[in-house]
Amino acid sequence: MDINKMIERIDRYEATVGAYYHAMGVLGYDAATVAPEKSVTRRGQTLEVLSGVVFDMSTDPELILTLNSLWENRDQLSSETVRRVELLKKSSDKISKIPKDEYIAYESLVNTAQEVWHRAKPANDFEMFAPCLEKLVESSIRIYGYTDPDKDPYNAALDEYEKGLDSAKLDEFFGKLRSELVPLIKKISASTPPREDFLFGDYPVELQRKFSDRLMSALAIDRSRCIIGETLHPFTENFGRDDVRITTNYDPQSLASSMYSVIHEGGHALYELGSGEDLEGTVLAGGAAMSIHESQSRLYENMIGRSREFCEYILPQAKEIFPERLKGIDGETFWKGVNLSRPSLIRTEADELTYSFHVMVRYDIERLLFSGRVNVSELPRIWAEKMWDYLGVEVPDDRQGVLQDSHWSGGAFGYFPSYALGSAYAAQIYATAQKEIDIPSLVASGNISRINQWLEERLWRFGRMYDPWQLLEKCCGSEFDPSFYTDYLKNKFSKIYSL
Amino acid sequence: MDINKMIERIDRYEATVGAYYHAMGVLGYDAATVAPEKSVTRRGQTLEVLSGVVFDMSTDPELILTLNSLWENRDQLSSETVRRVELLKKSSDKISKIPKDEYIAYESLVNTAQEVWHRAKPANDFEMFAPCLEKLVESSIRIYGYTDPDKDPYNAALDEYEKGLDSAKLDEFFGKLRSELVPLIKKISASTPPREDFLFGDYPVELQRKFSDRLMSALAIDRSRCIIGETLHPFTENFGRDDVRITTNYDPQSLASSMYSVIHEGGHALYELGSGEDLEGTVLAGGAAMSIHESQSRLYENMIGRSREFCEYILPQAKEIFPERLKGIDGETFWKGVNLSRPSLIRTEADELTYSFHVMVRYDIERLLFSGRVNVSELPRIWAEKMWDYLGVEVPDDRQGVLQDSHWSGGAFGYFPSYALGSAYAAQIYATAQKEIDIPSLVASGNISRINQWLEERLWRFGRMYDPWQLLEKCCGSEFDPSFYTDYLKNKFSKIYSL
Repeated sequence: MDINKMIERIDRYEATVGAYYHAMGVLGYDAATVAPEKSVTRRGQTLEVLSGVVFDMSTDPELILTLNSLWENRDQLSSETVRRVELLKKSSDKISKIPKDEYIAYESLVNTAQEVWHRAKPANDFEMFAPCLEKLVESSIRIYGYTDPDKDPYNAALDEYEKGLDSAKLDEFFGKLRSELVPLIKKISASTPPREDFLFGDYPVELQRKFSDRLMSALAIDRSRCIIGETLHPFTENFGRDDVRITTNYDPQSLASSMYSVIHEGGHALYELGSGEDLEGTVLAGGAAMSIHESQSRLYENMIGRSREFCEYILPQAKEIFPERLKGIDGETFWKGVNLSRPSLIRTEADELTYSFHVMVRYDIERLLFSGRVNVSELPRIWAEKMWDYLGVEVPDDRQGVLQDSHWSGGAFGYFPSYALGSAYAAQIYATAQKEIDIPSLVASGNISRINQWLEERLWRFGRMYDPWQLLEKCCGSEFDPSFYTDYLKNKFSKIYSL
Repeated sequence: MDINKMIERIDRYEATVGAYYHAMGVLGYDAATVAPEKSVTRRGQTLEVLSGVVFDMSTDPELILTLNSLWENRDQLSSETVRRVELLKKSSDKISKIPKDEYIAYESLVNTAQEVWHRAKPANDFEMFAPCLEKLVESSIRIYGYTDPDKDPYNAALDEYEKGLDSAKLDEFFGKLRSELVPLIKKISASTPPREDFLFGDYPVELQRKFSDRLMSALAIDRSRCIIGETLHPFTENFGRDDVRITTNYDPQSLASSMYSVIHEGGHALYELGSGEDLEGTVLAGGAAMSIHESQSRLYENMIGRSREFCEYILPQAKEIFPERLKGIDGETFWKGVNLSRPSLIRTEADELTYSFHVMVRYDIERLLFSGRVNVSELPRIWAEKMWDYLGVEVPDDRQGVLQDSHWSGGAFGYFPSYALGSAYAAQIYATAQKEIDIPSLVASGNISRINQWLEERLWRFGRMYDPWQLLEKCCGSEFDPSFYTDYLKNKFSKIYSL
């Protein structure tokens, strides 16, 4: 077969398998946002059928032959095609190693586990969720045993989210965070906390929905390509750059909870919306890795959204919608309030400074689970112990403990470190951008679209062309250095707490 | 192949093709309720892929051979299997006659047309929608040319929604409605209309959402299997009996608009929720025909929802939610208000008495379109003329005229007569039920679930086992007789207007 014919073959594969992933993705989005509880069984059957077809298409010997031939002739291909072949080959090789039954059963298991978790969390019933979690861990370990037989399964999981990442690197990274941040956290806990009373109270959901629209406008998100849905645990999903969906969860007694969810997920959305048009429909479209994704969401959430300039910019709009609750609050008070640092129970609502310690709890537990040294049934106890060790807080119940995150119910083990890593990447990316554009002034004048433009140019448009660490280097002109992150945190919190 | 093997083959076909219809259906539901505007292109591509697979599966020579062998050996099969084979054969024979390109292009065209209509209606821009409508009419005529070459294409369309229906039967039916109802409508227009002022004014959407939940409870709809979404033009969709979705559209200045949408769509939902459990996953599951479906939705909307007993039952709950607007209104006033009869512009908000004249307008126009005697560009003018002839109202714009309904954008030509026919079936079904259970007393005491039970037993559980007219006879013990409908209307409106 000539090269062009072979490229047409992979074009066709991408278009076809893409349609199946799209349909399965919409089924999943629908399930997480609106589908009735009892829809789970039928959806599971449909996902089994569709994932079976995906398996067959992706392991088709003729496709694999084509990918291998293209790979051998890669010197004749454009760099984009080489990268496409590389990624397609990797995913196809991986799927081919998994028995088909196992592959399909996993898809169906995730569908069930998510539905069970959606009931177990509000019911504060870990026992209800535990059997699903146990199966998910077992199934993941088994699958990594097929795909990466020579690797420690947890390292295989980490590598899936961030190519080249392993526990040794993470131990070093988390070690640095601990040694740099613990003294600061101690100082802060001895200081007087800022006011935050105004962030709580009567914040009706229907008004918060209006505020979400204001936040989306402030971030210059194109609403003809991006919607907001509501779910138990916020996430972002997308089906190409023209169909991005963020979700939030409204707490009628809290302003900041959904506000910073929307900005966080808005950051994810901007990244997907800015994926290169030329990559659309190929495996190169979308985010490079979860760490880069989290670098964008955390950059918007914290470095922009929790900056003094953004607080001063958005407060008048918040006051229009919530005049009573925010009466007499000025920009500085708002800014300090949304940056109050205090060890707490819920990761998504944690302040920036203590945030990565929440990640460490999950990282430790995932390692234990994947090593087989603990049983799922022990998790509530271990969770409580770890939260005490890292954050000094007591966990009152599983809803605010081990059941709080949706990730494990979706089979996402090894994902959590991306949040901490992403936060650190964000600080380095921000420092790079700041040399070229003045972010605080742009935020102060409501010109966030200029920041979006910089990030699109330097990061978003490349999609999956590069591995995450490569992309970071390409964007920043230097290797990853976590000092940007620790310096940023020390500087910011010293100001807020006048240390 | 032995009979059991052949039955297994069609079991497998139903399960597989069902998964594709499920996925395509969720994509469509998502599009109509929440998907961002620009998602249309990618969704079109995905639908093309999936519908191409459905085409291939449904026209697989081996499947057709199996269906034919089973049909020849139908004396050895259970009546359920015979019916399954009959319906599968019919649909497979039909699809086989359509060129694959045409079949796929049609699926994609509907996706585009729906998105365009969703923009054209609020913009009051018929020109925007006209090219899509033209293509849909042409494509439908072409497709019926393949599937039913000997039939008038509009009769083929009618037959698709209601087996055996044709324009001759409808002309007779509508003729009877005109001769029986026009004198009554004239008498009423000379009478003093009841109060309806309290149905309009400030009805905030967030409170209407709460009221919808009350209505769903009043109808005894199982919410773990049924959700409410929001869309431009309400519809009901379902993916098996455990996943039913109704939709509504809230007008912040009107109580009755969404209230009766919810009850109407609730009727559709109850029918799907009550489809026999034994039929689940087979082609026999779900509604027998659109006319029977509309008989259920119109029965709940009008014969129950607009009954004096229901108005008296639900009013205290409405008052809890809207105390200001409904202060001093009693059950009788509410009942008369929601039954005010006056020729109007919008079909879905028309009173029961003038309703079928809206259907006649659409029926006439569809016949003209399918006969090729008019161009799509003439429709706004023809619409206005017909509305004047049948209802004596002037059409101020296309949003309240030819653009009001979603049906044509979905390619549903020949569907509208089901509404009038369904209303007439409803009256006959109601009269049958009334001989066995006392519907008004059950409604008055909030015991609608007993009515649901009767309908489930006599109608819903049979799914598609029977053709619609057969099912009606089975349920009522007599042939279809439109006098039940005209008698019911004369009786009801004579009471309301004290004629």
